[in-house]
Amino acid sequence: MKAEIITIGDELLIGQTIDTNSAWIGSELSNIGFDICRKTSVHDRSEDILSALKGIGRDTDLVIITGGLGPTSDDITKPVLCEFFNTRLKMNETVLENIRILMQRRGFDLNENNRLQALVPESCTILPNAVGTAPGMWFEKDGKIYMSLPGVPAEMKYLMTEHAIPELKRRYKSQVIIHKNIMTYGTYEAKLAEILTGFESALPDCIKLAYLPSFGVIKLRLTATGKDPSFLHAVLEEQTSKLRSIIPGFIFSEDEESLEMVIGRLLRERKSTVCTAESCTGGRIAGMITGIAGSSDYFTGSVIAYSNEVKKRLLGVKASTISEYGAVSEQCAREMAEGARKLLSTDFSVATTGIAGPSGGSHEKPVGTVWVAVASDSGTSAEKYIFGTDRLINIERFARAALNLLRKQILSY
Amino acid sequence: MKAEIITIGDELLIGQTIDTNSAWIGSELSNIGFDICRKTSVHDRSEDILSALKGIGRDTDLVIITGGLGPTSDDITKPVLCEFFNTRLKMNETVLENIRILMQRRGFDLNENNRLQALVPESCTILPNAVGTAPGMWFEKDGKIYMSLPGVPAEMKYLMTEHAIPELKRRYKSQVIIHKNIMTYGTYEAKLAEILTGFESALPDCIKLAYLPSFGVIKLRLTATGKDPSFLHAVLEEQTSKLRSIIPGFIFSEDEESLEMVIGRLLRERKSTVCTAESCTGGRIAGMITGIAGSSDYFTGSVIAYSNEVKKRLLGVKASTISEYGAVSEQCAREMAEGARKLLSTDFSVATTGIAGPSGGSHEKPVGTVWVAVASDSGTSAEKYIFGTDRLINIERFARAALNLLRKQILSY
Repeated sequence: MKAEIITIGDELLIGQTIDTNSAWIGSELSNIGFDICRKTSVHDRSEDILSALKGIGRDTDLVIITGGLGPTSDDITKPVLCEFFNTRLKMNETVLENIRILMQRRGFDLNENNRLQALVPESCTILPNAVGTAPGMWFEKDGKIYMSLPGVPAEMKYLMTEHAIPELKRRYKSQVIIHKNIMTYGTYEAKLAEILTGFESALPDCIKLAYLPSFGVIKLRLTATGKDPSFLHAVLEEQTSKLRSIIPGFIFSEDEESLEMVIGRLLRERKSTVCTAESCTGGRIAGMITGIAGSSDYFTGSVIAYSNEVKKRLLGVKASTISEYGAVSEQCAREMAEGARKLLSTDFSVATTGIAGPSGGSHEKPVGTVWVAVASDSGTSAEKYIFGTDRLINIERFARAALNLLRKQILSY
Repeated sequence: MKAEIITIGDELLIGQTIDTNSAWIGSELSNIGFDICRKTSVHDRSEDILSALKGIGRDTDLVIITGGLGPTSDDITKPVLCEFFNTRLKMNETVLENIRILMQRRGFDLNENNRLQALVPESCTILPNAVGTAPGMWFEKDGKIYMSLPGVPAEMKYLMTEHAIPELKRRYKSQVIIHKNIMTYGTYEAKLAEILTGFESALPDCIKLAYLPSFGVIKLRLTATGKDPSFLHAVLEEQTSKLRSIIPGFIFSEDEESLEMVIGRLLRERKSTVCTAESCTGGRIAGMITGIAGSSDYFTGSVIAYSNEVKKRLLGVKASTISEYGAVSEQCAREMAEGARKLLSTDFSVATTGIAGPSGGSHEKPVGTVWVAVASDSGTSAEKYIFGTDRLINIERFARAALNLLRKQILSY
């Protein structure tokens, strides 16, 4: 089955917005067995959109179109779709009602522009959008499926996950594709690839291995393709078990969980709690932990101690520690973790202190240096890492290094 | 002048790599006056690359092609270009010498794969690559320019900056494109479009307006196209000044700054400091503030008070406030802001308490409800918002609502 993706919006063409939508869609469609053969981004101009639609390959089965469904004048996808599918716009009362409810919740009245969003091409099937005002639209023509989705990532993802993917899975059953996502932390991609050279060359033909790195976490995706699901599951389990014996220290989940999800699960199982004491990560770790629904069961709070004053006054870091070793030091990280654990009365605490950059480094402590510490009843452990020079990437890497140390401490407890 | 971009590589289609190259190229070409009318990503398969080349628009002047020039077996761009341009591969001694020098510097011998990289289509002009082994190639056919560049971002950028852009500027002097990005907060896209209906329809022909919304922030992008830069700058200034008078309350930056950048600038100008007291945003606001380099000049720290216990003990929220009004209440938000400001000794503080969801709501306080408060010397102000049901989107929207209230308070101080 072949798929193409069309993204609409000149912000994608002039480089104001990086097109993450189509990467996400490509990954999801690929997961359910589609071969993504082309991705096209066009201006929000009728002739450009039409030309992209007309340029769809003859043997393409599925076309996903995103963008241009908003309520403003530069949103012109719907009339173009009407022209392409030879249909007309019609008021859809169900969609209108949904928009009314959404606007009411936000405390706004329905205005004329909102009302226009309920005008949809007559020949399409509506994919109800519970998280925004623009509905998804499903068309069929000459044996191809076309789907038009809003460009707002959260709305596009909602419609893909709740409506498009389940329906596509029902329609296309011929080939079975099963993925197994094994999450690792603790080494870098080239090194992991070197360690797994033998494993990779011994993989059976029906299995493909991909490395998907993200800020220190490397997802190993095993993809099994064939006809018989139970055979494929067995092969995947066999290969996973091989991986378990080759890289036991790096695997933290066999179910595509993030570090913060694994930590949440472990803490809940142990009825334990955690807090954070963050300097260089500035709240990123707390943000990752509280991004998980239900995290209030095990997360009580944090102290973000950006200034030395706050490190000393709230977390009880000794003035002599900072004057003797500096704020970016093992000693300071340990005292931050211990101070936060006492202050916030939790079972575990995790602390970070480092230099995110781009400036502020020195010869002994270059930009990218971080100390992370985890404190619990059984003591405090600390580790040092040195990453790169990009501030935002460093913050992401620091946070994952800290979460991984926390995970190991919870497990060894 | 119209341009198209073709990127080659299946990692771009299955979502393993997000295509940042084409965003960068789009931005650079747009800056020198090109209208980027399409961007296509295709598999590294001959038929897909050829089909993309054949699908180039008739009135397109420039085609930039990236990827598929490496030394491995899936790098097939050059033979396809030979087919398309009806030419053949020939060893280029200058290119070979460059590769030899590069490999020597890295301490490697020239191997057969490297030598193959010096085979280039006979009809092209070489763009010498000082930072990598694959040269850029410049073709002309039927009045169009085609450039084939390596997909490695640093090499592509080098070739664009050192060779392509200067040459294109020499050739095409006619058109100028200038963008002006005006950042707004305080209303939703449909409403803003309604307010700006008259403004939009009165825009001169040389100006286009786009709405780019992101979690409550709406970027208004004015694009001016023409011949005379000083005339276009004047027209943009005139239209910006109109916007200033129509929506003075919504504009927070005319220079494409984020809310946290504006806040950083304002605090630095005033030599003031800020801290945060976050419940439902779980550190997101602190994370946004500390994402800006140099934020330690005005940000001292935060208390993330997820549990009521922490709200009471660290921030001094009264037990009676929580029992009488609940943790998600104006009173609690105010006491959190005031408590954090005292505890962390800052000029300003910003607090959030709300229900991010997906569960935990009630009839009076549905999921998506947030109270934000800002405290300073001149008193405390609080506002209530109700957003949607998606947890991660709510957290982003809560954080921006809080930052905007903070911004207003700093300005009115």
